[in-house]
Amino acid sequence: MRPVLCLMGNELFGEIKADAWNVATAIELFHNFTLIHDDIMDKAPLRRGKPTVHHQYGESTAILVGDVMLVKAYDYINQLSPVYISRILHIFNKTAREVCEGQQLDMDFETRNDVSFDEYLHMITLKTSVLLAASLQMGGILGGADEQNLELLYQFGLKIGLAFQMQDDYLDAFGDPKKFGKQPGGDILANKKTFLLIKTLEIVNDTQRSELQHLLATNEADKVQRVLQLYNDCKIGEWAKEQKEVYLTQALTHIDEIPIAPERKQPLKDLAGLLVKRDY
Amino acid sequence: MRPVLCLMGNELFGEIKADAWNVATAIELFHNFTLIHDDIMDKAPLRRGKPTVHHQYGESTAILVGDVMLVKAYDYINQLSPVYISRILHIFNKTAREVCEGQQLDMDFETRNDVSFDEYLHMITLKTSVLLAASLQMGGILGGADEQNLELLYQFGLKIGLAFQMQDDYLDAFGDPKKFGKQPGGDILANKKTFLLIKTLEIVNDTQRSELQHLLATNEADKVQRVLQLYNDCKIGEWAKEQKEVYLTQALTHIDEIPIAPERKQPLKDLAGLLVKRDY
Repeated sequence: MRPVLCLMGNELFGEIKADAWNVATAIELFHNFTLIHDDIMDKAPLRRGKPTVHHQYGESTAILVGDVMLVKAYDYINQLSPVYISRILHIFNKTAREVCEGQQLDMDFETRNDVSFDEYLHMITLKTSVLLAASLQMGGILGGADEQNLELLYQFGLKIGLAFQMQDDYLDAFGDPKKFGKQPGGDILANKKTFLLIKTLEIVNDTQRSELQHLLATNEADKVQRVLQLYNDCKIGEWAKEQKEVYLTQALTHIDEIPIAPERKQPLKDLAGLLVKRDY
Repeated sequence: MRPVLCLMGNELFGEIKADAWNVATAIELFHNFTLIHDDIMDKAPLRRGKPTVHHQYGESTAILVGDVMLVKAYDYINQLSPVYISRILHIFNKTAREVCEGQQLDMDFETRNDVSFDEYLHMITLKTSVLLAASLQMGGILGGADEQNLELLYQFGLKIGLAFQMQDDYLDAFGDPKKFGKQPGGDILANKKTFLLIKTLEIVNDTQRSELQHLLATNEADKVQRVLQLYNDCKIGEWAKEQKEVYLTQALTHIDEIPIAPERKQPLKDLAGLLVKRDY
């Protein structure tokens, strides 16, 4: 998805340049480098249904493979026309630091029960949204967009990232198992901080908070069912759907503000709708 | 040492440029990134007498800190005058890949008993020498050196790296505990592959090989003493000192071939002698 966003960011303003393929490749290498290192940190045995690198080849090799993939990403940036190298490098580095910071915050949050909605939003923005936003923006640069349009494109990416994450969290709790491909409640069982859990903790009354915190601290057989009941009591599914629409609308508003022919913008708007409305 | 080599590579050909400080900082950040990740892989509790990052802050944070330091190194490269960015980036990336490959080979060798001298030399060249060589070379580029001189500087760095490693291995086996600051034999106790062990395995007779492999497979109280006895029987200390001088001489020959005033070269030659002749 990220390399495609880079190409679409370019295409929004002009023909796709050869340089865009190099940036797209660098982005995909970077993204996969973060997945390999994150999987070590999360001790995840599987990724995309296959054994993770550290699971198959050992942790040391997985660390090194990630390192080399990051270096390789910079090789692709160094293939760019000289006029773009420094500018792309600047955005790429800034984004890379932010993604790492997001991952550290995500880990810090695991041991905390008092993460506020704003803190969570900040973490997701860093961990997920900035790379989508930067992919679009770097593509836009190669397409010749001006600063104002680049900023609109970046803001579109940030909001799409939030809507995407909201949909992800929603599906994990309320998805149709037939379409979603797995039983809902994986995040609940793993005590994962999600938009749903963070928001629920903010709005529950004292009795509900006690029950929720008891459920989080234990692993009773009906844990998923009881957390979902609390979510339903707080109408958190409805909130998530509304909030997702808010982010999607904000995203589309940013795109609408870019002063180019509507038909050029349609593919990006279609993609946004697709990502956010998926039920799998 | 590596940032200093970068500055000295610059100074060999002209006044130290502001850019050299950025490259030197990038190199030092890169080197420390590799140490942090290597320490995770080696499960090392101490580095420079202090707790390692993973020991103090946990493995996940140590992985991320290393990642961010590598990104930060690229930030410094992006501070260079535009005319140098692509060229320095090319050398930096190539070197980074090689150092990672050297670390992987080093780990692969741990479980092998048939590592040849040439294989070991190749591994040490990648793991240790190429960064010293590239530090000098990148400094030389900023100093305005031509391709031929850059190659001589690079070869000087490679040989100094080998001589340095030879001295390191020698001291660990034969160093004076009073000057060296610790009891000799640390590498022997850890079954670490070293120049001494690899060479000994190549030249021993069958009886000695059986004994050495028995000693490597066990941890008897007199292990260090008995391996050192074998080293002495094979005159491996003398060989190491000679071989170190061979590398040092080769290194100095490369420097001598650079057609500039001898007094400009003296500091680099002095440093080479110092690194290789140290007894601590």
